[in-house]
Amino acid sequence: MDGNSFGKFFRITTFGESHGKCVGVVVDGCPAGLALKEEDIQKELDKRRPGQSGISTPRKESDLVQILSGVFNGYTTGAPICALVWNKDVDSSFYTRIRFTPRPGHADYTAFVKYGGFSDYRGGGRFSGRITVSFVIAGAIAKKLLRKVLGVEILAYTVQIGDIKAKDMSIEEIKGQIENNLVRCGDPEAAKKMVELIEKVKEEGDSVGGIIECIALNVPPGLGEPVFDTVEGELAKAIFAVPGVKGVEFGAGFKAAVMRGSEHNDQFYVAEDGNIKTFNNNSGGILGGITNGEPLVLRVAIKPTATIGKPQKTVDLKTKKTVEILGKGRHDPCIVPRAVPVIESVIAFALTDLAIRMGLINQVIKLKDG
Amino acid sequence: MDGNSFGKFFRITTFGESHGKCVGVVVDGCPAGLALKEEDIQKELDKRRPGQSGISTPRKESDLVQILSGVFNGYTTGAPICALVWNKDVDSSFYTRIRFTPRPGHADYTAFVKYGGFSDYRGGGRFSGRITVSFVIAGAIAKKLLRKVLGVEILAYTVQIGDIKAKDMSIEEIKGQIENNLVRCGDPEAAKKMVELIEKVKEEGDSVGGIIECIALNVPPGLGEPVFDTVEGELAKAIFAVPGVKGVEFGAGFKAAVMRGSEHNDQFYVAEDGNIKTFNNNSGGILGGITNGEPLVLRVAIKPTATIGKPQKTVDLKTKKTVEILGKGRHDPCIVPRAVPVIESVIAFALTDLAIRMGLINQVIKLKDG
Amino acid sequence: MDGNSFGKFFRITTFGESHGKCVGVVVDGCPAGLALKEEDIQKELDKRRPGQSGISTPRKESDLVQILSGVFNGYTTGAPICALVWNKDVDSSFYTRIRFTPRPGHADYTAFVKYGGFSDYRGGGRFSGRITVSFVIAGAIAKKLLRKVLGVEILAYTVQIGDIKAKDMSIEEIKGQIENNLVRCGDPEAAKKMVELIEKVKEEGDSVGGIIECIALNVPPGLGEPVFDTVEGELAKAIFAVPGVKGVEFGAGFKAAVMRGSEHNDQFYVAEDGNIKTFNNNSGGILGGITNGEPLVLRVAIKPTATIGKPQKTVDLKTKKTVEILGKGRHDPCIVPRAVPVIESVIAFALTDLAIRMGLINQVIKLKDG
Amino acid sequence: MDGNSFGKFFRITTFGESHGKCVGVVVDGCPAGLALKEEDIQKELDKRRPGQSGISTPRKESDLVQILSGVFNGYTTGAPICALVWNKDVDSSFYTRIRFTPRPGHADYTAFVKYGGFSDYRGGGRFSGRITVSFVIAGAIAKKLLRKVLGVEILAYTVQIGDIKAKDMSIEEIKGQIENNLVRCGDPEAAKKMVELIEKVKEEGDSVGGIIECIALNVPPGLGEPVFDTVEGELAKAIFAVPGVKGVEFGAGFKAAVMRGSEHNDQFYVAEDGNIKTFNNNSGGILGGITNGEPLVLRVAIKPTATIGKPQKTVDLKTKKTVEILGKGRHDPCIVPRAVPVIESVIAFALTDLAIRMGLINQVIKLKDG
Repeated sequence: MDGNSFGKFFRITTFGESHGKCVGVVVDGCPAGLALKEEDIQKELDKRRPGQSGISTPRKESDLVQILSGVFNGYTTGAPICALVWNKDVDSSFYTRIRFTPRPGHADYTAFVKYGGFSDYRGGGRFSGRITVSFVIAGAIAKKLLRKVLGVEILAYTVQIGDIKAKDMSIEEIKGQIENNLVRCGDPEAAKKMVELIEKVKEEGDSVGGIIECIALNVPPGLGEPVFDTVEGELAKAIFAVPGVKGVEFGAGFKAAVMRGSEHNDQFYVAEDGNIKTFNNNSGGILGGITNGEPLVLRVAIKPTATIGKPQKTVDLKTKKTVEILGKGRHDPCIVPRAVPVIESVIAFALTDLAIRMGLINQVIKLKDG
Repeated sequence: MDGNSFGKFFRITTFGESHGKCVGVVVDGCPAGLALKEEDIQKELDKRRPGQSGISTPRKESDLVQILSGVFNGYTTGAPICALVWNKDVDSSFYTRIRFTPRPGHADYTAFVKYGGFSDYRGGGRFSGRITVSFVIAGAIAKKLLRKVLGVEILAYTVQIGDIKAKDMSIEEIKGQIENNLVRCGDPEAAKKMVELIEKVKEEGDSVGGIIECIALNVPPGLGEPVFDTVEGELAKAIFAVPGVKGVEFGAGFKAAVMRGSEHNDQFYVAEDGNIKTFNNNSGGILGGITNGEPLVLRVAIKPTATIGKPQKTVDLKTKKTVEILGKGRHDPCIVPRAVPVIESVIAFALTDLAIRMGLINQVIKLKDG
Repeated sequence: MDGNSFGKFFRITTFGESHGKCVGVVVDGCPAGLALKEEDIQKELDKRRPGQSGISTPRKESDLVQILSGVFNGYTTGAPICALVWNKDVDSSFYTRIRFTPRPGHADYTAFVKYGGFSDYRGGGRFSGRITVSFVIAGAIAKKLLRKVLGVEILAYTVQIGDIKAKDMSIEEIKGQIENNLVRCGDPEAAKKMVELIEKVKEEGDSVGGIIECIALNVPPGLGEPVFDTVEGELAKAIFAVPGVKGVEFGAGFKAAVMRGSEHNDQFYVAEDGNIKTFNNNSGGILGGITNGEPLVLRVAIKPTATIGKPQKTVDLKTKKTVEILGKGRHDPCIVPRAVPVIESVIAFALTDLAIRMGLINQVIKLKDG
Repeated sequence: MDGNSFGKFFRITTFGESHGKCVGVVVDGCPAGLALKEEDIQKELDKRRPGQSGISTPRKESDLVQILSGVFNGYTTGAPICALVWNKDVDSSFYTRIRFTPRPGHADYTAFVKYGGFSDYRGGGRFSGRITVSFVIAGAIAKKLLRKVLGVEILAYTVQIGDIKAKDMSIEEIKGQIENNLVRCGDPEAAKKMVELIEKVKEEGDSVGGIIECIALNVPPGLGEPVFDTVEGELAKAIFAVPGVKGVEFGAGFKAAVMRGSEHNDQFYVAEDGNIKTFNNNSGGILGGITNGEPLVLRVAIKPTATIGKPQKTVDLKTKKTVEILGKGRHDPCIVPRAVPVIESVIAFALTDLAIRMGLINQVIKLKDG
């Protein structure tokens, strides 16, 4: 029980279900004095909305955010910000029919076991990807805070879909491309192939996974608390809250296993601006769990969408017999592109919490324009 | 500041430095009635001790644990258990000499920045691998609790050192081999090559990384709290507290990115004992952040030891000039084998916390033999 | 910043402002399987509603609760329960006029200082007594849980208004009287005098305070966690969240100061039912921070309503000149009667948290009727 | 289980038992750069030491503190500070004899029930007043931080023992007197009568309670987090951790119940130094849970010592028969004077936590002398 909150200082508490009345979040610990409008949040929410193309689910979710508390006269007040998106009425009859036949790859079975059959099973209920709306709302507030107060910029993008990999590129090259293609990939040529792969997979009634990379620029050195509340630990915990994530790595990540120390160690030098920098960034901007001022770099593995158009074996929980189940067909064959803004969001609120803990963001923000 | 604690219910708080008086831990939330002796902990501590072979540092650390509180008449009382290992006096003069020239790959620079030059720099201070003594102490208690009350068994082992990979083996095959070789690998042939690689790397004054796999058997279904306190999130956070970890993946992990949904989804069936099982275990025993009763499987990427015998560039923090630094030579060229019991330990205390949160372990344990 | 949440396991997070869109709460950690309807909550909310008599403010607040999440098919699901009451549109112009002249006895000044002038000042904003709607919503759920699963009954009532004190009565005598008079006092004769006092004070444009006593019956022994999360500590923290509370005492309370140990100590005996009981209950049912099975007894001092009809001195925060301010006249001259259900509520959710921590309430409730 | 920690940022975790090896504390979250020696702590510990006079227990406890971690070269490092006092060997045979006959007024019975008979019963074990050594250690560090960084001064003193009350005095008058008499009372004449009362009570084999007042001077306005983490809520929680406390009140406290609003409200004015002040301080320096810059004032009711020299009725937990028990005679007949430095300590660490949360104390302290 419990577990729906994240953060120590910038503490977000999520609520809502896929086919319930709404999905929303309470953000407790946002400083007073930040200029905040619903449009600031809507802009980010629109990025995770489905129905943007043929490769995404055609469900119409307008997903208009409504701020219920914590903002007054256009500024945050220091009080908790509750914001939510009302769900549209949808037909849940399919889920009632399959209530006792858990879908492979989904949380149906574990939710049933954990909550003794009382969990809301409609559309995956509390385990639906739809709950990431809450993450994006909180992330939008966090992003604005980080950008305004510290100049931090967070950029996520797709680097792999199935076996199609984006080429190595600088973050400057990537930045301009992300929103230019349907898969949010920095490499236009790879993006084209990724789209083709997704379309092919969709025709086959199947799905495919991928890898998202995320870079945070201008992160001040000193962020992260040893021993347990490290940058990696806090970010990883937030990232694993996103449905479908199977792995997280920082800097060289799993490749570090095959490297020599002489190759992996990032040696130091003094940059022209007098700042201490490293020649490489195999550490991903983190040493001893604390940021070192280099770009923070991480990658996230996303599994293929669990819902597929092919028959799969499962068990009828009432009869304890093996049966076949067929997925409901209107889901994304690849959730990676829509997960991109979600990953940015969770990193944003996790970093904000660490920044406040470190004392970098005060309880009252005093900017010319909030 | 803060961040040295982990867990909500089975809450461990670590303290101590590499060259300070001691390293230790307070375990708050251990149920009353568990039979506990110093030997239970010593057994686990001995596994992480260096000096066990030519491939490990020859430093003599006897590391005898002392329980200071929370145990009475051979049983835990429900009060916080403080236990520690006293450090031996060691020569810290090397560290005083390099105080202002941070070692690449170490936390020297970030610790200096974060703590304004006040951090204990001797032997890495609070950022030394030595602090994992605290993890192993807490993990030993957690392991005993999990085994006694729930029958859970946690097994970690090396699957890769540099580019040498262990072959695919069943956990039954692996189990008997782990303590039979110096690298704690289930595959004896790969183990031999791994040892050779480490010796070669050592001769070169270099170091090498690797990958540890960990399996938890008999984990009851239903463990893990959505949305943020998932099994993956909690375990990843604990694992990233171990110095040198660069990545964590569950089940198919990063390979999930190249899989189709039809391949990745674990389909269900009813086993002969009437339990619901899955044909494969690409999920690593977790769906929706909650255990499903299958073995919990994860892998951890460990970077090459930061200390190497080769000269490296760094910056003198006082003069802001680039200088060369040479590591102190008595460190493990590969920390992977010694990290194995540490990974087991952090997984043990993270799982224990989730088991208590779920109500599976009561506040008073009533076993025949405690 | 933050601080709007209470509880470790049964964790409530409050939001909303007096003149904002709504006041509400997210309850995270409520077990699955509890039958819950909006009526269960509405019943409790109706008790704190003003306008019930001539001694209370005539403001019409219908205060209809709406459950937004966490309940499905009439039962809690284990997911967070968000519930709120929409505010009516009210005229806030008075508060805009007095924005820079903080009202004595209110939080206007401290809120202005803490939040740099960004706090919502309308109707006291986040510091209004109206936020106790959130407490009553969470308390209603907690009360039902405690009653259904453990048989715990929580009863608060007025024992003093100004200098009018209720006579000593047994809880059985008190119980039947509480809802029979406007001041929620167990002693009908004292109640009559209390009403007269409040009416007199009201005519004078003044206000008056009082004392509420609260008893929890059938509390199982063993509740409460040493050293800091004691029953007294947890309850006191929750109680001090109620606006206007100036003191909390348990059992003999401040009278213990003048007692001898031989008089204060509650000696033990074996009751006819075989249970261990105490002859007296000076401890208020708590020893060492842990319940002993006797009724839990506490008293709460409530200050006179800060808003009065008389002119008071304050400072203009812009001009730094002393000025006179006159309260807006439609407030309760005594908030004690309306605070009674609020005190019951905070005690209910604090006790529920302790009961879940002790393992007395499972994550899935299995009662015939939920 | 758990509950032995306090604070969100300046987080203290206590451990140890009365007749165990030691009593100690880990302070996590103390900023780096504070000059700290064992003498800073010893000075405070000496105040709570018994054996200072004929009215206190003659037990010899030298109670020498030892800092085990977190301090290097005379300054805090930002790492957790573990410090403890080793217990002397004492004879526990009395406690073994009365193991199954719980002493009235002590936690013997509730500890037995809660921990299933596994708790350390020697000298009250974890429930002994001796655990306040941990509070005083943490409090000494907190006091130094508050004084050095914010100029906050915390003063506790006895205002009542039994029915002997100190006269009303200004804090300036009180300050010079506190350490001049055995009962730590600001009023020398009352102090004399209090000592006589304690001696009389002692002769009778009885005990007596009292009231401690505490004032914190120079507390900056804005401290305290609404809604639950109010100054009153945080302080009350910390105070109720001190064994024997039965009540806590702020400002006018329980007297507020009999006051009119026009009398209780503290009206504002501008002081000569330009600061906004109040004419009275019935609020005790707190409005809406937030400090207003006036002195923070609170009072604590302490019950008479539970151990007395007279026979009392209790129950044999094995035979379930009523029996008589006689206390062991060497305890303080009045713990109020020794509780005075303990109350100061808990208030110090609770305020420190709030000050760090508000951002008033940075993670690195930069003072000329630390």
